[in-house]
Amino acid sequence: MSISKDAPSTLSIDAKPYAFTFPLEKTALLVIDMQRDFLLDKGFGYIQGGNLEAVQASVAPTKKLLEACRGAGLTIVHTREGHVPDLSDCPSSKLARQAAAPGNTQHNLIIGDKGELGRLLTRGEYGHDIVDELAPLPGEVVIDKPGKGSFWNTAIMHKLKARGITHILVSGVTTECCFATSIREANDRGFECCGIEEATSGYNDANFKQCSLDMIHWSQGLFGFVAGLQPILEALAPLSTVNSATDTPPQTPPAFDGDLTIPALQKAYKNGLSPITLVEALYSKIEAYKKVDPAVWIYLESKDNVLAAAKSLTVKYQDKKALPPLFGIPFSIKDSIDIAGLPTTTACPPLAHIPSTSAVVYDKVISEGALFIGKTNLDQLATGLTGCRSPYGIPHSVYHKDYISGGSSSGNAVSVGANLVTFSLATDTAGSGRVPPGFNGVVGYKPTRGTIPFRGVTPACLSLDCIALTTKTVSDARSLWQLLEGYDPLDEYSKPALGFERHVNSIGPQAGSFKFGIPPAEALSLCSFPARRMFNETVARLQKLGGVLMPIDWSPFKKAGELLYDGTFVSERLASLPDDFMDKNRSALHPVIVELMDAVVARQSTAVQAYRDLQAKVLYTRQAEQVFAYSAKGIDVLIVPTAPTHWKIEEVLADPIKKNSYLGEFTHCGNVLDLCAAAVPAGTYPVSELSENKDDAGELPFSVTFLSGSRLDAEMLEIAKRFEESFRA
Amino acid sequence: MSISKDAPSTLSIDAKPYAFTFPLEKTALLVIDMQRDFLLDKGFGYIQGGNLEAVQASVAPTKKLLEACRGAGLTIVHTREGHVPDLSDCPSSKLARQAAAPGNTQHNLIIGDKGELGRLLTRGEYGHDIVDELAPLPGEVVIDKPGKGSFWNTAIMHKLKARGITHILVSGVTTECCFATSIREANDRGFECCGIEEATSGYNDANFKQCSLDMIHWSQGLFGFVAGLQPILEALAPLSTVNSATDTPPQTPPAFDGDLTIPALQKAYKNGLSPITLVEALYSKIEAYKKVDPAVWIYLESKDNVLAAAKSLTVKYQDKKALPPLFGIPFSIKDSIDIAGLPTTTACPPLAHIPSTSAVVYDKVISEGALFIGKTNLDQLATGLTGCRSPYGIPHSVYHKDYISGGSSSGNAVSVGANLVTFSLATDTAGSGRVPPGFNGVVGYKPTRGTIPFRGVTPACLSLDCIALTTKTVSDARSLWQLLEGYDPLDEYSKPALGFERHVNSIGPQAGSFKFGIPPAEALSLCSFPARRMFNETVARLQKLGGVLMPIDWSPFKKAGELLYDGTFVSERLASLPDDFMDKNRSALHPVIVELMDAVVARQSTAVQAYRDLQAKVLYTRQAEQVFAYSAKGIDVLIVPTAPTHWKIEEVLADPIKKNSYLGEFTHCGNVLDLCAAAVPAGTYPVSELSENKDDAGELPFSVTFLSGSRLDAEMLEIAKRFEESFRA
Repeated sequence: MSISKDAPSTLSIDAKPYAFTFPLEKTALLVIDMQRDFLLDKGFGYIQGGNLEAVQASVAPTKKLLEACRGAGLTIVHTREGHVPDLSDCPSSKLARQAAAPGNTQHNLIIGDKGELGRLLTRGEYGHDIVDELAPLPGEVVIDKPGKGSFWNTAIMHKLKARGITHILVSGVTTECCFATSIREANDRGFECCGIEEATSGYNDANFKQCSLDMIHWSQGLFGFVAGLQPILEALAPLSTVNSATDTPPQTPPAFDGDLTIPALQKAYKNGLSPITLVEALYSKIEAYKKVDPAVWIYLESKDNVLAAAKSLTVKYQDKKALPPLFGIPFSIKDSIDIAGLPTTTACPPLAHIPSTSAVVYDKVISEGALFIGKTNLDQLATGLTGCRSPYGIPHSVYHKDYISGGSSSGNAVSVGANLVTFSLATDTAGSGRVPPGFNGVVGYKPTRGTIPFRGVTPACLSLDCIALTTKTVSDARSLWQLLEGYDPLDEYSKPALGFERHVNSIGPQAGSFKFGIPPAEALSLCSFPARRMFNETVARLQKLGGVLMPIDWSPFKKAGELLYDGTFVSERLASLPDDFMDKNRSALHPVIVELMDAVVARQSTAVQAYRDLQAKVLYTRQAEQVFAYSAKGIDVLIVPTAPTHWKIEEVLADPIKKNSYLGEFTHCGNVLDLCAAAVPAGTYPVSELSENKDDAGELPFSVTFLSGSRLDAEMLEIAKRFEESFRA
Repeated sequence: MSISKDAPSTLSIDAKPYAFTFPLEKTALLVIDMQRDFLLDKGFGYIQGGNLEAVQASVAPTKKLLEACRGAGLTIVHTREGHVPDLSDCPSSKLARQAAAPGNTQHNLIIGDKGELGRLLTRGEYGHDIVDELAPLPGEVVIDKPGKGSFWNTAIMHKLKARGITHILVSGVTTECCFATSIREANDRGFECCGIEEATSGYNDANFKQCSLDMIHWSQGLFGFVAGLQPILEALAPLSTVNSATDTPPQTPPAFDGDLTIPALQKAYKNGLSPITLVEALYSKIEAYKKVDPAVWIYLESKDNVLAAAKSLTVKYQDKKALPPLFGIPFSIKDSIDIAGLPTTTACPPLAHIPSTSAVVYDKVISEGALFIGKTNLDQLATGLTGCRSPYGIPHSVYHKDYISGGSSSGNAVSVGANLVTFSLATDTAGSGRVPPGFNGVVGYKPTRGTIPFRGVTPACLSLDCIALTTKTVSDARSLWQLLEGYDPLDEYSKPALGFERHVNSIGPQAGSFKFGIPPAEALSLCSFPARRMFNETVARLQKLGGVLMPIDWSPFKKAGELLYDGTFVSERLASLPDDFMDKNRSALHPVIVELMDAVVARQSTAVQAYRDLQAKVLYTRQAEQVFAYSAKGIDVLIVPTAPTHWKIEEVLADPIKKNSYLGEFTHCGNVLDLCAAAVPAGTYPVSELSENKDDAGELPFSVTFLSGSRLDAEMLEIAKRFEESFRA
């Protein structure tokens, strides 16, 4: 998504039954089943006796449509119909019905049989793939579907929602079958669809196509809209110019303009920026920032190594129109996440080890073209919310050297906040991926647990741990999540792919409003004066954006938070360590961690207590579910201050355990209740307002966290994004 | 489902593109959206300008079709399109698109607006309901759908699979919209559909209807079949005679023939049997059986009370064609399940209390017409697998007075096995709902945990507990599950309704084969000689039925079983009791329970150990998932002996704890791994084969348990049913 700010945000084209109006950022082009098997000689369609000439007629118009949509920066989704090689996803009815026809002469070869383009409609075969003219580019969504409808047994609904899509331009083959079926499915799910007449065709005579299109727009839009190709090309053409600077590359390659967000870098690279240029610029900043704060990195990759990586990217990806989504995007990683060949310390030297394989998340961002810069500092054992519990020093907030960076992902947030990297991979158990971003003016997104593979990360409290993403913007967080999320059968806490398709109405195409809840006054009274003031402003801002404040039951959130450290859950932190770990390594550990762990051991929590706590967790989780939009009466998001106040480093050092737990007031419940959460910058306030000393100069960041139920990430991020954008307007 | 054994099991009718052949037991009639809002004057359709005459033309043919299908005992499914009163399930696109048309004159009133038949397309309104002529009968499935397709955001897929449906006759309005869309959806999901031409119509001109039907059968059956009304009526007519004895009720009301299975009683009641006659016959048996075994009941309802209940049923339901599914079906209930006003003892007098509300499951079966007979004996605290741990005596196997009944649901299984009731409601934590049925020659079905509400039941080990059903047949177990399952927001362990639609291919329409696994020889070597012999015969029988024996990884099942009693999980049994319970009630408890609980306390299990066990549970659960048919390579069912041997009562009394845990070898893993399971009779063997004493007379039952993954109940039961039927063939 790289829509220019100069471009119109909404387009409208002539269509039946009336003009189709669509917001560019929320519109996808769906290209259905433009596969060799359906379009080429000797493919599946040809073998079943299909009229190839008729379907081939849609290829050229679809190509024009695809290029126009790419030029305008629309989300592109391709589908491919086909089956896994053992055909276990092909119902016997589909396999046999047509071939079983008495006197069948038409269906001699069936799905899975060997044809000249490979096994028919079988994934991985040549014939199954999309024709060359319409081949997907890196970053475009490709959906493999076992049915005629695109929504059956696929992730398309989830992928569209994750990208905030509400409107779909539909093309592809065949009109009467997969095209019409998919439009009907999409319509039921709340998407506004517009079929593009020339960009679809079928094997049958013209009557099926005409009738299928007529049914779509009959009765003033029974299933949606139908438009001609010309109007959409004309509407998109001006946008294509805006984004097609690369068609005539500038003589001098552009310099790095300092904007590290993903779309800005994507655009710059398209326009000819070299990642080598970026690395040079970045390392000047990194070196300079070492003087400001020497405690950010536990391991910094050498500039030479990063330059070499940048160089090899430029060699590997020469077509600037087909760069992978993270091409040349610099990132850091919390030093509890494995990179093969580098020590993972978890800020705890006795635990340090050099892994032979990298964490899944690291491998994934590297495979998408990202540039590794370094491993960042953290609170020891990823235990803490202050950033003051590491043997590698105490990073401070990028806003003020006296104030804490937050923890445990301290270096992560500072590396993003100080503009040293585009994003950072962190973890979150009790708030480690939210509090530090909150104290450094950046976004901290903790997706629903188990949606991003955790494999290759040192556990803190395994059943509550998750990967967190630290970014400059909500959009960047969402883009990263889209790349990283997915079921990992080897991570036993990974959640299965979301086949459970929730209805889209809560943030439907035309919906301007949303429902939100906040903690009661009593809970907010813990906050500092500026935090309370800023939180009130946040509520007012959300109301201006269409948010309706609803009363909620706060008790499950409160009680779940208390379970985390007052109950037995903290014992799980010990469960991942050897029994004699504390005794053997006492002197090598951070004194605050020793004190904390000794207290846990001293409690002598029993298994019976643990099972009671777990029963309570299940109960509170159910109660919290009732609060969210699974039910009609629920809210779309819960808004809380990310932290109730912002401590000075000296304040934390003077009272390290109490000051720490105070910070988790609004984060502790997140993973206990299996929520998703994003900490988002919500303005700044004068330091003096917090310190009550008029002489104190500078500003501190305020952050609010958007929370929602398990797997409601897309809906939550959509609202968080609206909030973030309101600061730019 | 009450297909006569004399009737043909498969029918075939003329259709396009060729004859539609369907197995009666697996075929449903789908009647789509025959609602007042679409069919009557002043309804939604009328207001939107629909051609009412055209749609009304399908009412009379659909009525004929519906009656023929009912007569033949087919599953009947009605759908209703509409929205919850706050319209939160209605996407804004659906609500607004048509009304937003410029110059709209056609859509002045929209969904949710007040019309003369009530709020348009709104659930609960008069207009939303089905027209009188086609009104659903008790026991027929009614699906409320928010979309045009019947499969979007509804439970239809799950309901069809739960009933073993593979073929669907489709009728209803409108052809071009909900009818065609639903057929496309059903086709993708592997169902064989046949649209019935006269029983569908649309608002539009004939072209839409014709074209929609043509697309279905084009290309030798692109989406399915289309047939005329006459062929299907003719095919079903003979069956209707078989089942319509009630049309001319016999002069003398029939006597009870002793067959207590649900379909037999349903048929008998339709044919005029009075539940009073049944109760009289039943109480003679119950009284007689008290002499055989006085330890079955903890509370037996008085005959007078049951006669009064039977009487009031006959008064309430006078139309014999519209009886609720459990009309006059006698049942018992484990005495750990609450009935308002009666003591719940859990076979533990110190815990006995009189609840003011009944368990959800009790209320549900009563509301469906079932007759409560009594509360049955169990092992104290539902802890045990022998049936020898109750202060209310030791029930014995219905096969032999020297042999144990199994536990903890001892009385349940005996009450069904001795033909005193049709079914019994039990619980299962470690095997309590499987072992006793296994020792009494009946079926013990433990659905996936959380699919039947557990509210109102004394917990044993709350996170592992579930309701279990004891029945005479797998079909009865399945029928009961269909009635009882459903999400209960007030039961925090209840699983949400299954929106996750798994593909149906594993037991698809034409699939004759299935894949199964068994424990390794080493695990089976624990079994008695006859158990091993019978298990080998079972494997051979399954192979004859089309089962393909596959190698599996047994280790997660073994390790999960060990966790249950060797690990900390048993501590959860104490978590539901007050801390001082053991101390205060020591003398009032069964000595074996005291010994067991003391041992648990003595272990001093820590919270750290508990969290390690829970992490292991998550890991083994993931490993077990890999074994089952979630993945293409997985098996459909795991088959194990329900118990490795059958102890004598005296053997258990001599060594109560060891003999008990031995029995759980193949049941312990079930709830730990969140599996579904059904213990099914698998023949009998001579007592002498077990005792190795030739003089021992009599037979003992052998039982095998079918296990599958979480929520794969429908698939598992389908195979269990085939197995069960093979004994009748």
